Amino acid sequence: MIELEALFKITYGLFIVCSGDKSRGNGYISNTVFQVTADPPQFAICCSKNNFTAEFIKKTGVFSVSVLEQETPSEILGRFGFKSGRDFNKLEGMSVKYGETNVPIVLDSSLAYMEFSVINTVEAGTHLIFIGKLIQSVLLDKAKEPLTYQYYRQVRNGTASKNAPTYIDKSKLEAVKASESFEKYRCMCCGFIYNEEKEKIRFSELPDSWTCPVCGSDKSDFIEV
Amino acid sequence: MIELEALFKITYGLFIVCSGDKSRGNGYISNTVFQVTADPPQFAICCSKNNFTAEFIKKTGVFSVSVLEQETPSEILGRFGFKSGRDFNKLEGMSVKYGETNVPIVLDSSLAYMEFSVINTVEAGTHLIFIGKLIQSVLLDKAKEPLTYQYYRQVRNGTASKNAPTYIDKSKLEAVKASESFEKYRCMCCGFIYNEEKEKIRFSELPDSWTCPVCGSDKSDFIEV
Repeated sequence: MIELEALFKITYGLFIVCSGDKSRGNGYISNTVFQVTADPPQFAICCSKNNFTAEFIKKTGVFSVSVLEQETPSEILGRFGFKSGRDFNKLEGMSVKYGETNVPIVLDSSLAYMEFSVINTVEAGTHLIFIGKLIQSVLLDKAKEPLTYQYYRQVRNGTASKNAPTYIDKSKLEAVKASESFEKYRCMCCGFIYNEEKEKIRFSELPDSWTCPVCGSDKSDFIEV
Repeated sequence: MIELEALFKITYGLFIVCSGDKSRGNGYISNTVFQVTADPPQFAICCSKNNFTAEFIKKTGVFSVSVLEQETPSEILGRFGFKSGRDFNKLEGMSVKYGETNVPIVLDSSLAYMEFSVINTVEAGTHLIFIGKLIQSVLLDKAKEPLTYQYYRQVRNGTASKNAPTYIDKSKLEAVKASESFEKYRCMCCGFIYNEEKEKIRFSELPDSWTCPVCGSDKSDFIEV
């Protein structure tokens, strides 16, 4: 038996992982960043093979991690978590600094950042695990709390993007029931899916003042999928 | 520059990872358990090569993860986090069930548990990363909050054991200062180190009623190290 709710009891932070250089870079929202050794300090991240940022990591051999603060605006989560850098330059207009290796590092809504050089890449089915040696780590704000995946899900009603290791394709699990009586609506701005079955409220019954819980777009920005 | 405080902004849960079988098993406290793929569900854990449990994982090819609840008693954290199963049977007297693979699963203070079979083992210096395929996951308590490493450190004043990926050997970093003026005291029960320099209070100035923040042992159970 696999109870998916059991998996939601695993604690994760939320981060922007970036790669590239001064000419072009990209970043995505990750919940899988963790230290693997203390001496020397080495970390691992887990990244979908479909992820545009994975191409930059493979090419440059470097990546950065920005630790997001609890009150990170939905616009930033939507921009980095639910859109693809293949469609536009996510770093444009953001506060970005470049590390010792020229890797871009996002400073917006960040409590701390780290810079890594890849020392090993591990195949794991749909995802790659990149193991990186810590080059630098900087604390930007000691007082603020980091954003956790639990807080994002419980307090801010967020979901995982389809490339996240924790993504659950509910349409697959409950295909029969959903296809007969429930519909889904996608935010054209950030990709968030409103699932009638999960939310227990018909999309048509939501007030006109309702907005996308991820990026704040209007109800009229949703299309049926 | 490496600021260690930046690394403390990374969010982790706390878990008991177990391995072995019905005849003999062992477990340890881990903060590195994370999902790496959703389809099929696969997870990774990171384990010190010195860890007794690592021997069981290598031998049996299976491990379990119990997600600890926020108010896990210090006795359990001390038993699994700061003692070695080479010295005694950690599972004796605990509430243990055995999984489909016969792996022991600790139920005490657990919100949820998972059972895995190892599909890949990755070398990472002092540690091994075990990648496991999810065999089962069970939610035991929906209402309670999971224990996080942040809560353990901030609210309960805990430290990392020396085999943890996040362990910081402060004696190494600040050897000169410490050796000149500060002392350390080790709890003979759980291994917790009281560091005068870090705590800013001499051990001798602590009241006699003071107890070990990890396992609750008396002040008289500490020895100078």
